[in-house]
Amino acid sequence: MLRNFKEILEKAKSFKKATLVVPIAEDEASLTAAIEAYKLGLINAILIGNKNRMTEAAKEFSGEGLANYEVIETDNPEEAAKKACVLCREKKADIILKGNLQTSQLLKGVLNADFGLRTNNLLSDVCVIEDPISNYKKLVGISDGGINILPNLDQKRQMIENAVSVMHKLGVAIPKVAVLSAIEKVNPGMPSSVDAAELKKMNLEGKIKGCIVDGPLALDNALHKWCAEMKGLKSEVAGDADILICPNIESGNIFVKGLVYYKNIKQGHVIVGAKVPVLINSRVDDAESKLHSILLAIVTGTER
Amino acid sequence: MLRNFKEILEKAKSFKKATLVVPIAEDEASLTAAIEAYKLGLINAILIGNKNRMTEAAKEFSGEGLANYEVIETDNPEEAAKKACVLCREKKADIILKGNLQTSQLLKGVLNADFGLRTNNLLSDVCVIEDPISNYKKLVGISDGGINILPNLDQKRQMIENAVSVMHKLGVAIPKVAVLSAIEKVNPGMPSSVDAAELKKMNLEGKIKGCIVDGPLALDNALHKWCAEMKGLKSEVAGDADILICPNIESGNIFVKGLVYYKNIKQGHVIVGAKVPVLINSRVDDAESKLHSILLAIVTGTER
Repeated sequence: MLRNFKEILEKAKSFKKATLVVPIAEDEASLTAAIEAYKLGLINAILIGNKNRMTEAAKEFSGEGLANYEVIETDNPEEAAKKACVLCREKKADIILKGNLQTSQLLKGVLNADFGLRTNNLLSDVCVIEDPISNYKKLVGISDGGINILPNLDQKRQMIENAVSVMHKLGVAIPKVAVLSAIEKVNPGMPSSVDAAELKKMNLEGKIKGCIVDGPLALDNALHKWCAEMKGLKSEVAGDADILICPNIESGNIFVKGLVYYKNIKQGHVIVGAKVPVLINSRVDDAESKLHSILLAIVTGTER
Repeated sequence: MLRNFKEILEKAKSFKKATLVVPIAEDEASLTAAIEAYKLGLINAILIGNKNRMTEAAKEFSGEGLANYEVIETDNPEEAAKKACVLCREKKADIILKGNLQTSQLLKGVLNADFGLRTNNLLSDVCVIEDPISNYKKLVGISDGGINILPNLDQKRQMIENAVSVMHKLGVAIPKVAVLSAIEKVNPGMPSSVDAAELKKMNLEGKIKGCIVDGPLALDNALHKWCAEMKGLKSEVAGDADILICPNIESGNIFVKGLVYYKNIKQGHVIVGAKVPVLINSRVDDAESKLHSILLAIVTGTER
């Protein structure tokens, strides 16, 4: 079981080199992360964008040019997204890292019926954090603060499956999944609590496999067994959750940003469910969190 | 402007003594908080519940009996909630602190048309935290992780007004209000972002007064001006928000619990909008956070 990003890095080094493609590789954080991953021997990189701007940017941020990277020229973000997708379809690239274009422009390409990377699975964002609650002895996956606005029951089932696949690759054999709500009892007036109980039932019935699902749980119950016990809950998940499923995009987004900005946790995140891992870090994420996302993509998302 | 709970305590000492009523005062945290507030000279207390159990509990937790408190006997939680409400209607009590009964049992009393404490205002929960982002130089109000499940636009307007009234009493003349979403641009597919923009407009039109409202803001934009600027936002609120309005109960609940359990912040919270402040702390809250809630209720909720 991998416990932190340092261990994910060591694991990533054991994989065959992946090829990372960066549409509009003209911003500091994505360029720096790509260059760093290359220097660590983890990837080859294909940089798509305006050659002059990319060269200038690479010189400014790393003091070097682009000699080590394949360069594809375009000034058009949607064209860059399309090229990145086509490269992945042709198996010439394995991971997409968003550069200086809008998330919506990239996802429009990824979801395109002709040249995109859609599978039969739901796309969902899994954020992996180094876990302060366990005193940094484990990794915890949180989903989904980035893609699915108000997932329905079946979409939540797929969010769980996507997050479970990530935690399996990180070495957690049977991840414990806490389906979060604002309460720990089913309240028909709070649909997130009803869905959570239903997902637990689906797990017990074998419709969600490879994990133990419990819910509804409030965050305190999920994090600490004594909190669950004070509320009269018996739960295998309480106090030892490996995955926290948030009921809507706002709760996932605010929760993770709260951990980043109040607690300074280390995190990386990856979109799961497409043919290849897609990394859509925010422009305010630093190069370290983008590198973490690349490491996650190598270890959890590719079959090499 | 009060900056932390120590300063709220000093301010509370300047108020005329309030009377706190505790329905089913049989649990450690609520009894301990009431006794401590009494010893600080802030309140007189009316304890409602089973006299034997209350006496035993008080001896166990404080080493003393109930000689200093008015005691009203009942074994029935709904009866206890009713009695607490009636005492407040008759102006014999000023603040209700939930003891060992369900929040729903207490709120059923508070919302009762005959003997309850409803006004024309929405009831909403305002959590006040000592703010790590400002290096603990200010207090921030967060609403609503406890009462309103999926507030509509008008309910969010009232949540803002309730939170603004609290921050006014804490000495913030013109609170800056960040209406949170998962993004900082209006996206018709994400209703929380649409509402946030509408609330900003209502503030500009003078329909929400005494504050500066901005939204939609993602949490990073609300907390740090550089994050807002990287996203191309110009905002008076970004980087200096006094109030964070969450779009639904799950995001408010998970956010605040995240701050409590990952960051160990000091907080108290109060339900605003009823005839008196109502304190519905969770059973897992400790006596300190309940005492903080009493302090908040004294300073922000009573007119003495």
